[in-house]
Amino acid sequence: MSRVEIEKKIQSENDRVAEGNRRIFNDAGVFVLNIISSPGSGKTTLLEATLDRLADKLNIVVIEGDISTERDMDRVRARGASGVQINTGGGCHLSSRMVADALGKIDLGPADLVFIENVGNLVCPSTYDLGEDVRMVLLSTTEGDDKPMKYPAIFHEASLAVMNKIDLLPHLTYDMEKVEKEIRVLNPESEILRLSALTGEGMDAWIEWVENGMRRKKAELEG
Amino acid sequence: MSRVEIEKKIQSENDRVAEGNRRIFNDAGVFVLNIISSPGSGKTTLLEATLDRLADKLNIVVIEGDISTERDMDRVRARGASGVQINTGGGCHLSSRMVADALGKIDLGPADLVFIENVGNLVCPSTYDLGEDVRMVLLSTTEGDDKPMKYPAIFHEASLAVMNKIDLLPHLTYDMEKVEKEIRVLNPESEILRLSALTGEGMDAWIEWVENGMRRKKAELEG
Repeated sequence: MSRVEIEKKIQSENDRVAEGNRRIFNDAGVFVLNIISSPGSGKTTLLEATLDRLADKLNIVVIEGDISTERDMDRVRARGASGVQINTGGGCHLSSRMVADALGKIDLGPADLVFIENVGNLVCPSTYDLGEDVRMVLLSTTEGDDKPMKYPAIFHEASLAVMNKIDLLPHLTYDMEKVEKEIRVLNPESEILRLSALTGEGMDAWIEWVENGMRRKKAELEG
Repeated sequence: MSRVEIEKKIQSENDRVAEGNRRIFNDAGVFVLNIISSPGSGKTTLLEATLDRLADKLNIVVIEGDISTERDMDRVRARGASGVQINTGGGCHLSSRMVADALGKIDLGPADLVFIENVGNLVCPSTYDLGEDVRMVLLSTTEGDDKPMKYPAIFHEASLAVMNKIDLLPHLTYDMEKVEKEIRVLNPESEILRLSALTGEGMDAWIEWVENGMRRKKAELEG
């Protein structure tokens, strides 16, 4: 079998298992986001800030993906999330099989909301369906304003793009309009939010977006 | 053939072609760096700042790796480099074969120094030898101070770690000592430099490091 054939087989097996995950998530009535970004764009910091605002009223599960360490799981647990750390041991993205295995260790019964934090990588996770409702790309201002066209796949695949670290804009040369224009070229349907998970600027709109997503999902499942 | 067997075959084929590249580089007497980092850590900005200081006295070739666009090649050409842009079209790292193909389009005759800028990815490029003399990891302060242990392979493989964007330290919570300690746990031999490619702070030590590397390589080839 050639490498291309093997990759195709892996993708189709991944899609099959992702459908199983999606059924499990739907049966539990949870809204699921798969968060993808470069290393250090602020995925875990955004989850911490989100937990600070929602953990009192919602049951939130986090599935953490990393090559190594439990660091991110420790951080979100300290803010009130339950969940599981997946260590890929070198693997450059989460697969639906890894998430399925993690789901075996999680009680989704009481859960309202699930975040899957993918391995820090703007390339490889782009096309791997994990069974999520929303694939989301997080982009930080400090990464520079030329990224969408250089990493087109994830911006094409993601239905939500969130710009993080807008608190650092005064210290950077960064053209927000240019970034948004490029994202819309790659995906005209993409929603775009701007925020700073650290200072809280823009967090209200993000929380509203998440809560609207939960309501939409609930309505779909009931309809 | 299983996926693991295919990966092994790919790695050994990559090593074989990398040796060919290394012979070509050595025959031309050039010093070669393979620069690896997350997207947006400042690889191209460091090359621009390096070219501003060295392009007058040295012939510098840059091999640019990106999934898409010629943006980085345009930037380094404007600062006096010659070279070739490789577009991987989705591929998450450069391979020695891509570099070998690029070398077919480059005249190394007058060259003194070659930089290979890998695809922005802290995971996949780590173990792919391209025939370089030095594998170097660039880490920016804005990515957070927890990265080495979370992405251990590249810090283990790289003989030089460069911290970039130290100009932003006053606006960040970042423990430089912690980062350096983690790098040394993963690779006690690693050299570490701190700089800001934007403001120029620390650039003298970097330029000196490059020039020493060139001298060392020349002595090895002559000895």
